Amino acid sequence: MAGAAGRKVRRATMNDVARLAGVSIKTVSRVVNDEPGVHPATAERVLAAIDQLGFRRNLSARNLRRGSSTGTIGLVLEDVANPFYSGVTRAVEEISRLRGRQVITGSSDEDPARERELALEFCSRRVDGLLIVPAGLQHGYLVPEMRAGTPVVFLDRPAGDVVADTVLVDNIGGTIEAVAHLAAHGHRRIAFLGDAPDIFTANERLRGYREGCVRSGVGYQEDLVVMGPHDERSIASALHRLKGFREPPTALVAGNNRITVHVLRALANVVERPALVGFDDFELADLLSPPVSVIAHDASALGKAAGDLLFARLDGDSSPPRRVVLPVRLVPRGSGEVRA
Amino acid sequence: MAGAAGRKVRRATMNDVARLAGVSIKTVSRVVNDEPGVHPATAERVLAAIDQLGFRRNLSARNLRRGSSTGTIGLVLEDVANPFYSGVTRAVEEISRLRGRQVITGSSDEDPARERELALEFCSRRVDGLLIVPAGLQHGYLVPEMRAGTPVVFLDRPAGDVVADTVLVDNIGGTIEAVAHLAAHGHRRIAFLGDAPDIFTANERLRGYREGCVRSGVGYQEDLVVMGPHDERSIASALHRLKGFREPPTALVAGNNRITVHVLRALANVVERPALVGFDDFELADLLSPPVSVIAHDASALGKAAGDLLFARLDGDSSPPRRVVLPVRLVPRGSGEVRA
Repeated sequence: MAGAAGRKVRRATMNDVARLAGVSIKTVSRVVNDEPGVHPATAERVLAAIDQLGFRRNLSARNLRRGSSTGTIGLVLEDVANPFYSGVTRAVEEISRLRGRQVITGSSDEDPARERELALEFCSRRVDGLLIVPAGLQHGYLVPEMRAGTPVVFLDRPAGDVVADTVLVDNIGGTIEAVAHLAAHGHRRIAFLGDAPDIFTANERLRGYREGCVRSGVGYQEDLVVMGPHDERSIASALHRLKGFREPPTALVAGNNRITVHVLRALANVVERPALVGFDDFELADLLSPPVSVIAHDASALGKAAGDLLFARLDGDSSPPRRVVLPVRLVPRGSGEVRA
Repeated sequence: MAGAAGRKVRRATMNDVARLAGVSIKTVSRVVNDEPGVHPATAERVLAAIDQLGFRRNLSARNLRRGSSTGTIGLVLEDVANPFYSGVTRAVEEISRLRGRQVITGSSDEDPARERELALEFCSRRVDGLLIVPAGLQHGYLVPEMRAGTPVVFLDRPAGDVVADTVLVDNIGGTIEAVAHLAAHGHRRIAFLGDAPDIFTANERLRGYREGCVRSGVGYQEDLVVMGPHDERSIASALHRLKGFREPPTALVAGNNRITVHVLRALANVVERPALVGFDDFELADLLSPPVSVIAHDASALGKAAGDLLFARLDGDSSPPRRVVLPVRLVPRGSGEVRA
């Protein structure tokens, strides 16, 4: 039994291990680093001494001496508590684990200054590579790091003013499909509720919505677009305003999982509900009444694709930066199939 | 513009900064470490040189020289993609940020070997402290680290065979309340679906269920307890079996958020649904039909309480290890208020 507040004891060193095992430090080092040239019986004695002393290699010292890998990957997200990003995090953890790396995470809360602070902090820790969901549009601050050889992959959104590996989802294709689906069910007044227009994904999805309206012959109507509200109250008030139109919309496209949830909450006690397609799938969407139709994509796939790019760079891939766009797919569940 | 695959250049050193600014290395060091004794104009020149060269302090080198903080906290969870744990992660990130630390996370997937591997890996990286949601029951492997002064706080579940700071939620009180609530609505045959009984929280919640049955005068019936199933298929089959009883249960207590969701899915197309109270709140519980009554507790509060304990230890608190038990509360929404 050991108390957390137990007496501090000196941490065992490689020297202590060498003394106890009666071998040279070089021999201990060989055993610890799995290098050849140690007699099995000697190795066993060294391992016993290591166990007995509770010796643990100081990886950060070792890595520093080697001047190379610190064995960590930095991941800057918008919010690790958002189920979409926690799915991304898990996928990055998995791929990093296979490559012997640990993941340091940080949430930017859509604040460019916080994104920069986190990314540079991770660089100060000499992470082997960086995965960034950018909050801001300016990434020149990363140029010295990138030049010095730290690979950086942007995910979900592209970098602002540097050329770098990027993994996105097909935002435009997704909202084109959402609008086409609603139009096919007779809707002609389709509203779009998106996040702040300076967020890349919000803007792309708006572009897709517009394109979808034109392609579906619905015609783009600017008054049916609401960009920015992203909490329960502001979304309820936007819906209230839309409902007051002489010809209110009969269908909605919600720009992301958070907005969809707020829309659902705002409409919970409304009898005549507009048809709805949400961007991003979410848990329990299929159990709601009506079940919610969504444009689905795969948070795991996004994390994995970004991790794959990063590890390819760490393996020496020096081809020009790539942009990977992952597909999305419409999952019709009921809420989008309500006829106008 | 810089390509990710750009030419590797040598990273600027403190020497380079000193040369460019025309000052001594000691002066650069003073500016970088915010120490007094540098003329403002000189400091400005040093900062300009730092900017120009893209010099970044190597924190891991500095920390290593100091032989003290690496500025990281290790967090071992069951699964960062589980919304409950991503809420915990976010809270730990927040409190660590206020204390100038970054968080390294790892998911154990309920595998004790993986938990141990992650925890020791984090120790090898000389994290300042460890937060662990234990998967296993044996933590003697942490004793050398704890002796060497690394504070360890266990959360959600206690450590197996070491005495350490621990933050739990009131598991027993929660299921007592769940049963009392269902009994108050006339239920006499109340089933309990829990996770594997070797998981601390599952076992505690079972104890609370049993106690609740006795206290509520319902009487504990062992055949109404199903422990272990935790995927959609096994839970559906457990429910099917319970339904086949001569006197099937009219109410269910679900042992955690995952089990509740699987129960809801299994019952989606069932007309006569048993009353239900789930342990753990979850998003959209209020929008389901009927809305799901839960025993709620606060993932943020859990993460924050654990972080507070850890940072108190880092600040030198050497009082005996503490056990904090956070309260839970019944949130009646409808599914638990169905009369028998």
